[in-house]
Amino acid sequence: MSNLTEILKMLEEVVRAPLYSVVGISGDKLVFMTNEEGVESLWYYDFTRRKTEKLCKDIYGVASVVKDSPYIIFTRDVSKGRELQQVFVININNKKEFKFENFTPKRIFSIDYNGELIALSAVSEKGIGLWIGKPFSELEKVYETDKIMIVYDLSKDYVVGYGVLKGNPKSYELFFFNLNTNEFETYTPKEGSVNKMPVIHNHKVLFVTSAFNGKNMLKIVDVETKELSDPKFTYSDYTKYNIADYVSLDWTEDGKAWFIGKFNGMAKAFIDGKEVPTPEGFVSYLTIRDNMVYITYSSFKRPHCIYEVNLKTGEGKVLLGHKLSEKIISRIGDIKFIKYKSFDGLEIPAFIIESKAARKPGPTVIYVHGGPWAEVANSWSTFITSLVVSGFHVVAPNFRGSTGYGEEFRKLDIGDPGGGDLQDVVYAAKWALKEKLASKVAIMGYSYGGYMTYLATVKYPDLWSAGVAGAGIVDWEEMYELSDNLFKQFINVLFANKKELLKDRSPITYIENLKAPICIIHPQNDTRTPLKPVLKYISKLLELGKCFEVHIIPDIGHAITKMEDALNILLPAILFLKKRLK
Amino acid sequence: MSNLTEILKMLEEVVRAPLYSVVGISGDKLVFMTNEEGVESLWYYDFTRRKTEKLCKDIYGVASVVKDSPYIIFTRDVSKGRELQQVFVININNKKEFKFENFTPKRIFSIDYNGELIALSAVSEKGIGLWIGKPFSELEKVYETDKIMIVYDLSKDYVVGYGVLKGNPKSYELFFFNLNTNEFETYTPKEGSVNKMPVIHNHKVLFVTSAFNGKNMLKIVDVETKELSDPKFTYSDYTKYNIADYVSLDWTEDGKAWFIGKFNGMAKAFIDGKEVPTPEGFVSYLTIRDNMVYITYSSFKRPHCIYEVNLKTGEGKVLLGHKLSEKIISRIGDIKFIKYKSFDGLEIPAFIIESKAARKPGPTVIYVHGGPWAEVANSWSTFITSLVVSGFHVVAPNFRGSTGYGEEFRKLDIGDPGGGDLQDVVYAAKWALKEKLASKVAIMGYSYGGYMTYLATVKYPDLWSAGVAGAGIVDWEEMYELSDNLFKQFINVLFANKKELLKDRSPITYIENLKAPICIIHPQNDTRTPLKPVLKYISKLLELGKCFEVHIIPDIGHAITKMEDALNILLPAILFLKKRLK
Repeated sequence: MSNLTEILKMLEEVVRAPLYSVVGISGDKLVFMTNEEGVESLWYYDFTRRKTEKLCKDIYGVASVVKDSPYIIFTRDVSKGRELQQVFVININNKKEFKFENFTPKRIFSIDYNGELIALSAVSEKGIGLWIGKPFSELEKVYETDKIMIVYDLSKDYVVGYGVLKGNPKSYELFFFNLNTNEFETYTPKEGSVNKMPVIHNHKVLFVTSAFNGKNMLKIVDVETKELSDPKFTYSDYTKYNIADYVSLDWTEDGKAWFIGKFNGMAKAFIDGKEVPTPEGFVSYLTIRDNMVYITYSSFKRPHCIYEVNLKTGEGKVLLGHKLSEKIISRIGDIKFIKYKSFDGLEIPAFIIESKAARKPGPTVIYVHGGPWAEVANSWSTFITSLVVSGFHVVAPNFRGSTGYGEEFRKLDIGDPGGGDLQDVVYAAKWALKEKLASKVAIMGYSYGGYMTYLATVKYPDLWSAGVAGAGIVDWEEMYELSDNLFKQFINVLFANKKELLKDRSPITYIENLKAPICIIHPQNDTRTPLKPVLKYISKLLELGKCFEVHIIPDIGHAITKMEDALNILLPAILFLKKRLK
Repeated sequence: MSNLTEILKMLEEVVRAPLYSVVGISGDKLVFMTNEEGVESLWYYDFTRRKTEKLCKDIYGVASVVKDSPYIIFTRDVSKGRELQQVFVININNKKEFKFENFTPKRIFSIDYNGELIALSAVSEKGIGLWIGKPFSELEKVYETDKIMIVYDLSKDYVVGYGVLKGNPKSYELFFFNLNTNEFETYTPKEGSVNKMPVIHNHKVLFVTSAFNGKNMLKIVDVETKELSDPKFTYSDYTKYNIADYVSLDWTEDGKAWFIGKFNGMAKAFIDGKEVPTPEGFVSYLTIRDNMVYITYSSFKRPHCIYEVNLKTGEGKVLLGHKLSEKIISRIGDIKFIKYKSFDGLEIPAFIIESKAARKPGPTVIYVHGGPWAEVANSWSTFITSLVVSGFHVVAPNFRGSTGYGEEFRKLDIGDPGGGDLQDVVYAAKWALKEKLASKVAIMGYSYGGYMTYLATVKYPDLWSAGVAGAGIVDWEEMYELSDNLFKQFINVLFANKKELLKDRSPITYIENLKAPICIIHPQNDTRTPLKPVLKYISKLLELGKCFEVHIIPDIGHAITKMEDALNILLPAILFLKKRLK
């Protein structure tokens, strides 16, 4: 078999590894999402019959599932990836679907359901709106703002959520929307602090806040009296870990709380303060049924699976999941979590994933995550694993602005995108060369990582042997003009309203400097990082006689939702890197 | 193995099938070209030692090889596919290379060598020039014109060639350039006739002409007296075939002539009128050594090989060639040569290559050849075989304007590109549907075939399920502005100087009509069909919300010279078609 066929075969195995994630429990059924058939679908596992069954396919978002309700609320992109969604209800018992016909498709970015009401936040004509409705009726817009507002939870009386509600790009405030009075109240324990992820139970709102010592911690606020208190846990296992951030959290039925905490690129779940034993890696969500917990778990070597833990015995096993073949696993080498110093001495956490299919020093890819408020953790990454099995060492820096290392670290890119964070990425490459991991370095990323790729290759043209920019940003000014209200606000926050920086931080401003061959991969219908400015960039590259490769993928938007699309992005990227890092 | 891996594996076998073609004989060595190592290279077969050896690689064009000279004259593209070439000499005995340093790289489109002098035609600043020189000296421009002028042969006293020398787009005239006097003489036996491929031997010029009854035939003209005569052959085997055109021809050392004649998509060689026995298929060049003939031969099922025939016994065998695996061969179904009626009743010859990997009716690709003055014959086609083994039936129409069916037929597109020829392509699709070969039809082509793909999908939007346009033309007006002197003249001839037609025949004029998903594949450095207008087309497609896929291949130009590039073009094309013709 030729080298190319061999690579494609492995790539297909990695990309087509089915992923499973917990949605919740409805009746006697564990609802989960999977892309087993190539597209995101809702399935359930019937505890009684001990078998899985498909509910419906082509899902974009899904609201919380409620034990006592047979209805599952979800959205579908009806715009070929442009992220304009319709809202649907499906009855888990008879699989009948209902569509909210009168709801014009919108960019919905959060949706929740409490067994009776649905609440969602979406882009509206004037800004961002809050819609409320019941299954089989109509959705009604009850509030509108020009600020970023994210619905997170709802009770009988309140919709709670958070956002950049005071226009301060460095703070998040909570909001409480009273369903009885339609009053919208903004709440912060301290001006300028970050408050997020509120979950409500009998007027008690559990949330994450940086208000007290700048670090993320859990607090409870009474939605009526605004009285603040510390959550009380029966167990204190969580204190063993230096938890820097939270992945998810909720109240249990009996008024206890569970949360998933992050530390050093890993995440673990704690119920009432007690650790739920899981293998090393990343836990992102859970649901509880009697003594059993169902957890979405993954690691660099394990695609997202549903992991079942018996709380009484502490025993755990994969209930639904795909195991990679020995062949793939055998190509993944040492995985290290390190910290290196950047230009200003700041310590930057990073994962180093060596490839057993590469010599050392060997071809190395600096993989830059998207977001920017996201991270590379010890969780499944189709991109990283694809690179590693194809014969590249990967360095994945969690540059300043990444999540997982506290609010101070996360906020370092606000008002300075493409500044310090870019330096951190550059220093990751220098680290790889100095440590004799890399013979040559390429940079690759998607979304904000694509932006970093464009910017790094024009601002540090001599460092890179190649760049692969997926769904990247080349021109913040033009992108701003093309953005909807949510993404305009996102840019405002990221740049801390410094409009004068937009041009300075745009790769197109420095395009003449490009030296390394660049591979541009972009979804046709991207409404976050639109294709139009990228086409202008390509025209300029042609004019300047630069070396570039282009792949525009039809019928998809920014989010990679189908296995086939992931392959359409990764295959050309890896073929390009194979040639350029030879 | 997955379907995708399976396809890639077969595709690689087809694309990487090494090709061999005869260049000529120097001393006791058969010089040939091969892409065995992925790029075009010059090799030789040593008759004494009975082994092959590489001379040099990365070859663009090569001049005739002369038995008594150890020097081989060739050109290399030094412009990453932009077709600007340097001229080199290599000594076959010691492999030493010499470069004409003072010759600024140019688009050279014909070059010849007679053992003493080199003659070449290339794009000059003012138009098209004729350069003369000796190995290890300098090349000197001795003539310049604003007309298309193609060097074809040279003797001690004359450079002979042909071109559109009187500015009549429907005629070709011969030229005789006297090397002693530097006089340039244009010759035609009849105004408005097509005269081409002159080869000179002792003042006798053998050439192909349509001057006498409109059909291509061989004549001899005395370069000094202009006396015309018929060539005299000892044998009359060739009269058994209805030869419509000529592939190549030359004088033998003893003043006899050989030629290769075309009929019904096949070609056979005749030496002094006697047929050289070869299997069914296509012969494109030959060289003679005593009783042995070395022939470049191929067919739909046999990649270009060097076929050796013993003239005494008539026995033949493949001397150098690649045999496709049984697996590939077993997927190629019936091959038929048919004629179908077009819109005006004109009979259009076409090859139908069925795929055993497709149902019937099944997914069918109308493959449109480039040129337009070229054809699909029963010869090796990487594109067609790749499609067939991937599970598509192929219909390859030789639309009006194609070669191989006489001058009258060939000239039918002059002054009407994208007119009658487009109809012929449309009628090929209709034929495939009517004959129940096709369930769905896509259109695919490269160069002029890419142009046809763009035009067909906007002028007949309901006929096609998909289109794949490789290195195509979307805007003749902008392309004209971007063209060098040769390609400006080419457009002038093709459009018969009707400038007003340029817009009318440009796909961009009708872009709003597009319905089928289109896959655009384009070389970055294409200097024949430049990328710039195609980028404009892509921007318009985006604006109009059409479904499109794009692949821009870096570092290459219009000509596909490397196996890797062929794969970079064919792989996305076939993945796209697989999805769209499902």
